Parts: sequence; structure tokens; C-alpha cells
Amino acid sequence: MSKVLLICEYDGTDFVGYQIQNNGRSVQGVLEKALAEVYKTEIRLTGCSRTDAGVHAAAHASSYEAPFVIPSDRIPLALNAFLPSDVAVKSASYVGDDFSARFDTLGKTYCYRIYCAPIRSPLLNRYSYHSTYKCDIGAMKEAAVHFAGKHDFAAFCAAGGSQETTVRKIIEVTVDKSPSEENMIEIRVTGEAFLYNMVRIIAGTLYHVGIGKLSPDDIPGIIDSLDRSRAGVTLPAAGLTLEKVYYPDQGN
Amino acid sequence: MSKVLLICEYDGTDFVGYQIQNNGRSVQGVLEKALAEVYKTEIRLTGCSRTDAGVHAAAHASSYEAPFVIPSDRIPLALNAFLPSDVAVKSASYVGDDFSARFDTLGKTYCYRIYCAPIRSPLLNRYSYHSTYKCDIGAMKEAAVHFAGKHDFAAFCAAGGSQETTVRKIIEVTVDKSPSEENMIEIRVTGEAFLYNMVRIIAGTLYHVGIGKLSPDDIPGIIDSLDRSRAGVTLPAAGLTLEKVYYPDQGN
Repeated sequence: MSKVLLICEYDGTDFVGYQIQNNGRSVQGVLEKALAEVYKTEIRLTGCSRTDAGVHAAAHASSYEAPFVIPSDRIPLALNAFLPSDVAVKSASYVGDDFSARFDTLGKTYCYRIYCAPIRSPLLNRYSYHSTYKCDIGAMKEAAVHFAGKHDFAAFCAAGGSQETTVRKIIEVTVDKSPSEENMIEIRVTGEAFLYNMVRIIAGTLYHVGIGKLSPDDIPGIIDSLDRSRAGVTLPAAGLTLEKVYYPDQGN
Repeated sequence: MSKVLLICEYDGTDFVGYQIQNNGRSVQGVLEKALAEVYKTEIRLTGCSRTDAGVHAAAHASSYEAPFVIPSDRIPLALNAFLPSDVAVKSASYVGDDFSARFDTLGKTYCYRIYCAPIRSPLLNRYSYHSTYKCDIGAMKEAAVHFAGKHDFAAFCAAGGSQETTVRKIIEVTVDKSPSEENMIEIRVTGEAFLYNMVRIIAGTLYHVGIGKLSPDDIPGIIDSLDRSRAGVTLPAAGLTLEKVYYPDQGN
């Protein structure tokens, strides 16, 4: 047996999320179907993250035990032949036998996009949240720096999470204009691990700073309050993309 | 009666094209339905261009006679309330009574996007053509300059066009890397008017230069030949976006 790490890209619009569920089409489901076609046996994937319905991924990581060895550069080609147009395997590599895409992550970077314009954009709205209000990027940048560090993020956690603790370590939060579209704001959140809806609530809180409902100086107090009602809205799934997953060097 | 010029953005994926047809959902159809809701009477649009099934528009122009005057800044809001998420009216302005979005155009700019990478991208393939070959942008730039000018473009016209002449004036063709994605090539074609599939065939010919099937120096001979079989392939509709339509100053 050999352990394989897959990096996948998907458009989350038509999925119930990464994880297999009873109520519809999942990314894991279509990937496991493709794995079964290639390896001629059932294979179970372990994902780095579940991602909610409608959330996209530029580079989602998952791992599986392969029943036999296929050269790693052939794995994407073999699997992509059985995948629909909204999912693709971008790369595959052999990793140590005890590797887990879920438990070995050092961290992840998510990007949340907000398109600020009086009128919505049919060519951009699949991958962004539309705000009819202008946002003050300077204020958002000031607010963003307060998230870095190890904090109890209970104020940034949706109800329904089953975690033992709401303490998480955020490595960096940045706010920038998109290089291709001047009315698009890109919020990037890098952290070790996240609570349920945490990135969408951080993005919503920065959005409230951008439109003047909150001040950058309010952020430390909101974090300290542990009170979900003091943070901003949970922004919609479509604006969120998992951009990168970090692992220790696999030595290959 | 007052003449109105509308600028619309749409994602062409789920349309049979701009123009009303018997075989499915058209952009003109959904726009005229919204106009009927707002003005409470049937209104006929005149479009600047038909655009094929699957072709997108960042700024498509069309005009109509309004039965009564609504302030121009209110027209987009009123119409967008009745439009699906894949179409939006971006702006409206009052123009002269004899204005026609079709006959008064000075020109149009189309953008064709080619994504060059070994593996397709689910997050980019809705608005681009995927090439597994690398493209030589330098060669494509060299080839692009040969299109400018007034030429008989019979070699760049699909069968089935009903035009009286195949002479057209191309103002400029440019080839650049996308500012946001280094593997994305953007071909921009600006011209007075175009033959059937002309932009997709010019893009396909530049693509053949990019992958080495044609040389930049071949372009003048292909134009002179008037022979469709000597030009490159007609690239798929999804990669094409109508970016801009030019009109004389309307004095408002």
C-alpha cells in the first residue's frame, strides 16, 4: 500500500460541500467515484477540510491509500478523465504511510472576495460577494492585523460546531485590491485551523469595518468578548476560496 | 418617446446568444421581459451585436424607445430587479431619437482568453479556453500586428454568413498575459465590424502561431489567400467576451 496526497481545484457552486452527505453531490463523492474507476476498488479519501456548500477551492488537499502504484504524474490525468468539469486533480504525490491530509496540516489560507460596486456583476458574482457600499480598504487593513495570534475565537464561531475548544491560532490576515479588478477586495486569512464559519465571520467583520459599522479599534474588544453577536455577519459561501494547504516537507 | 442606450453585462454560458431565437433562453428575451415589467408594455431592443451561444459580455450595448421617461440612473435598478443573476444592466443613458445601438457603432473590442496549463482549471474554464500546450506569446504578438487594417477577411469567416462583402477594418489586435493569472493569455481584437466567427478564428489562428503550427510571417499570406482552410481553428465560445462598444459622443 502507498499513501497519496492529492491537490484538487473545484468550483463549489453545484456541490453540497467537500464531504459526502446524504443530501446531494459532494466533491469527495465525485473524487471517490473517479478513484474507484482508476483503481477498480473502493477507496476512501481523507480531506484537509470539509468546506461548506458553495465554497470553492484552488488547492484542496486529500489523501488515500493506493492499492497499487501508478506514477505520480499519471494520477491527475487518470482521475481527471473521470471527473466532471467543476473538479480537477491538479497534482498527486506519494507521501509517508502515516500521512493524513487532515491531521498533518500546518495551516491553510482562505481568500474571501468582496466586489464593491453600485450594480452586481454577472461575470464576477460566482466567486465573490457583491456589496453596493464602498469599502474603506485602509480601515480594513488596520482591523486585519488584530486577528493575528492565538486567541479564543468564540465570537467568530457559528453555533453548531462540535469543537472541544474555541482557541485557534491565526497566522496572518491581509486585505488587498485584486490585481485584475479595482473594485474587488481580497481578504486572505491564514491560520493553523478554523472554527465553523470562522473565515466567513472574520470577512464579515472586516466588511463591517469597511462600510463604517465598526472601527478597526473595535476588533480586540470583539475578540475578548467571546460574544458572536458582537462580530460581523457571516458572508455568503460563494465569495470564499480555499487557496492553499500547508504540510511539512514530504521529502519528495 | 425617448431613445435609451443600455449597457449590459452577461454570463453567456446558459444562453443561446444575445438574439431571441426559438430554441432557448436569449439575453434579449430576458431583457425584453424585464422592460415589459418596468414599462408595462412590450418593448423591442436593438442590439449592437448578436453574440453566439456561450459568448459573454462585459459591456453589450442595446437601444430601445421608452414610452415614458424614467431618470436614467433609475433604469438599471428598475430593470435589474426583474433580471436573473447572469444578466445585469450596468448603465442607461438617453440618446438622440435616431440613435441605433446596431447602426451607430464605431467599433467593438472583444477579448479571447486562453489558459495554458497541463491540467484544466475548474475555476477558470467558464471564461477561457484550456490549452494543454504552452504558447509563445512573443510569436503571437508578432503575428497579431498583421491583422490591423482594411482587408478582405474571407479566410476568417465561418460558412453561413450572409454579408454582402467580407472586407472589414481591424483597428488593433493585442496579445498579453492576464494581470491576475500568469498562465492566461488575453487576445484583444478591436474592429469596426466583424464577420461570422471572425474573432474566434483570429484567436484560433494566433493560437496556432502560439503552439508553433503557424509562423507570424504566415499571417499576411493567409489573409491574402481568402481561404478559410488556411487560417486556424474556430476556438470555443466560452473563451470570448465582448468588452466594449464604441459610439460617437451622445452629448450627455
